[in-house]
Amino acid sequence: MTAGADLDGDLASSAGEGDLAAVRRARAWLSRAAEPGSVAVWRFVERAGPVEAVRLLRAGGAPEAVQALVGVRAQQDASLADLRRAERCGGRLVIPEDDEWPALALHALTVAVTGEPTDGGEMTDRTRAPVPPVALWVRGRGHLAEVIDRSVALVGARACTTYGEHVAGDLAHRLGDRGWTVVSGGAYGIDAAAHRGALAAGAPTVAVLACGIDRVYPSGNGALLERIAQEGLVVSEWPPGAAPHRHRFLVRNRLIAALTRGTVVVEAAARSGAQATARRACRLGRPVMVVPGPVTSAMSVGCHELLRDAAVGAVLVGSAAHVLQEVGRLGEDLAPLPEAVPDARDGLSDLAVRVLDACPVRGGVGPERLAVVAGCGVVEVLQVLPALEVAGLVEWTGTGWRLVPPPEECAR
Amino acid sequence: MTAGADLDGDLASSAGEGDLAAVRRARAWLSRAAEPGSVAVWRFVERAGPVEAVRLLRAGGAPEAVQALVGVRAQQDASLADLRRAERCGGRLVIPEDDEWPALALHALTVAVTGEPTDGGEMTDRTRAPVPPVALWVRGRGHLAEVIDRSVALVGARACTTYGEHVAGDLAHRLGDRGWTVVSGGAYGIDAAAHRGALAAGAPTVAVLACGIDRVYPSGNGALLERIAQEGLVVSEWPPGAAPHRHRFLVRNRLIAALTRGTVVVEAAARSGAQATARRACRLGRPVMVVPGPVTSAMSVGCHELLRDAAVGAVLVGSAAHVLQEVGRLGEDLAPLPEAVPDARDGLSDLAVRVLDACPVRGGVGPERLAVVAGCGVVEVLQVLPALEVAGLVEWTGTGWRLVPPPEECAR
Repeated sequence: MTAGADLDGDLASSAGEGDLAAVRRARAWLSRAAEPGSVAVWRFVERAGPVEAVRLLRAGGAPEAVQALVGVRAQQDASLADLRRAERCGGRLVIPEDDEWPALALHALTVAVTGEPTDGGEMTDRTRAPVPPVALWVRGRGHLAEVIDRSVALVGARACTTYGEHVAGDLAHRLGDRGWTVVSGGAYGIDAAAHRGALAAGAPTVAVLACGIDRVYPSGNGALLERIAQEGLVVSEWPPGAAPHRHRFLVRNRLIAALTRGTVVVEAAARSGAQATARRACRLGRPVMVVPGPVTSAMSVGCHELLRDAAVGAVLVGSAAHVLQEVGRLGEDLAPLPEAVPDARDGLSDLAVRVLDACPVRGGVGPERLAVVAGCGVVEVLQVLPALEVAGLVEWTGTGWRLVPPPEECAR
Repeated sequence: MTAGADLDGDLASSAGEGDLAAVRRARAWLSRAAEPGSVAVWRFVERAGPVEAVRLLRAGGAPEAVQALVGVRAQQDASLADLRRAERCGGRLVIPEDDEWPALALHALTVAVTGEPTDGGEMTDRTRAPVPPVALWVRGRGHLAEVIDRSVALVGARACTTYGEHVAGDLAHRLGDRGWTVVSGGAYGIDAAAHRGALAAGAPTVAVLACGIDRVYPSGNGALLERIAQEGLVVSEWPPGAAPHRHRFLVRNRLIAALTRGTVVVEAAARSGAQATARRACRLGRPVMVVPGPVTSAMSVGCHELLRDAAVGAVLVGSAAHVLQEVGRLGEDLAPLPEAVPDARDGLSDLAVRVLDACPVRGGVGPERLAVVAGCGVVEVLQVLPALEVAGLVEWTGTGWRLVPPPEECAR
């Protein structure tokens, strides 16, 4: 992907915006120099072009607000080292100018960012701004845009319960089975269960990290992240080696929401990151799906709050079929109705039901008695008894009518 | 309530509609002769008046459709025996002409029935028709209208899980604590747990039965029904001794929905009676509330289907506060937001958060290094550090700045 020869030149050489290698190196530089998630930086890069943007920032000639956002990082250049470091771990930098850039999915962010005010020096909004990434570091062999074309985000609590772990794994497995890519954050708990479920189905899965793609974070998920890189994709906006700072998770969450057709929350405590991701998905017009749990479980409180919040418009889901009903193409993948026990009483007239209920379990009584109990005439009883007998509901004992033992017990 | 002397006379004596004892006896006769739930019978009684309606039916002079609905029961009169039987078990017949008739609650049925087609001989709709009762047999000392004025229906599966039993009991207890009456069906499972929870709170509870108020059904709930009759009310449309025929449960369910300000479903299998009650409440314009459960539980499938059905408009509830938010008076009983851990980071600027995240846990680094990691200028670092120190988030080690160990661990 990256032509080594072109990378050896100086970053701010005479290369123009048409030189793909120079553009890639400029975007690599930006991904380290400017903390991802800034509306001002993204707009500046869009307007000036990445190569010119880098030249201006390094020369201290960018607009003051943008220059302040980069600060002392403007004096450093690790872009070549970062690209080589990515290569060493089987990664690459995917940029908007590439074929595999997920332009369609990220279009929602491009649209959403137009309504955003430009962030100033304080930028309190940065972690919540719906801004597209300037580039994506990607580890894995898959074609990014193709892998996430039919994808669902599956997120939830790290300190999940075995219930949540089971449901997340099962959902991911079934979605993977039906050709869907499961996207999550590579964290402990629900994230890990989702990735594992997808991998078990032999389906690709994507971990979107809040640190460098070569970092093993969390440390206990090292083997899992390695397997995801082998069979799916590990994606990050931050350059190799970047640490998983807390604020980065919030910035990262918008990307999980944007890259996928919808977000499923499996378990979430009150005020959790998974809830934040769901609200981001909602703001981007993507379906928000929530798996309920016991109301006695603290790990489902966030899920239930999402379902109670009319502004989110979250849909309760309990199966892969429910999920596909929201994110699948119209007319496909409709959720089957829950299994209902067929009932021989269905379709019986009210009169027939009353006569049926008037029949005793043992013994056997005549039509006159049935008429009294059912509250109708003897003629009506004689009219409905043959149909009840044909339906296998009543039988003649020789002395009277009685019920055939019912196939199931349910009264309400 | 019933004046014994007046009851001794003949049913169709010269007593008119103004004679309360005669009206009561006429309605007692109707409650046995005409199976409850019929739109045609109710309309006929409304039009003719109960005493005249009984006279016509006994003489065979009622409209053909209505006469057919009563059938051979027209020749019998157990009204006096029924009233005496009710008295013997501490019961009475409450009629629309009584002060304690819950006219306000049942008004929804009176309104709904006007849109119903008159049922014919087949009456397939009878079990679903929103028709008011012609009278209510009541056991217990409470004033019916007062007891159900602030009431909530709590219904669910008979074959419930321990989770459902726990939640139903707890909800009923808390609702009872706040002065609300819990109404249910006296069945095993959720119904029984709801009644028990209310009784444990010393609150009245109402069991609406599909059989006579003197029947012990289900047999295992004998002691519970006895306690409900002592401390709450046992209510039925059917006369003493009436058997709990299956079709009667469906007719009964509309009454549970109508008598209460809203219906809460705790556990329900796919296609269950509790679901039917919830849909009845929805049709009567009453709030439908649903307690979710694990998606792996068959006993929550019906609950989740209700929550997924936009036509029902069911609200997810997980606590008594949630329930009161739906049925309570406006501005009262608002549900508190779920407990969220207060976070010292709240209110920090984006820049401050980035500097904070740049601080190491051990050691201690200078402002220049913090500026590089945080991606800003040294001046900005020096501007935000005092505020971070005051907030107790960072500390000066003598050689540099480091994090104060955080009070909680949460990153996403």
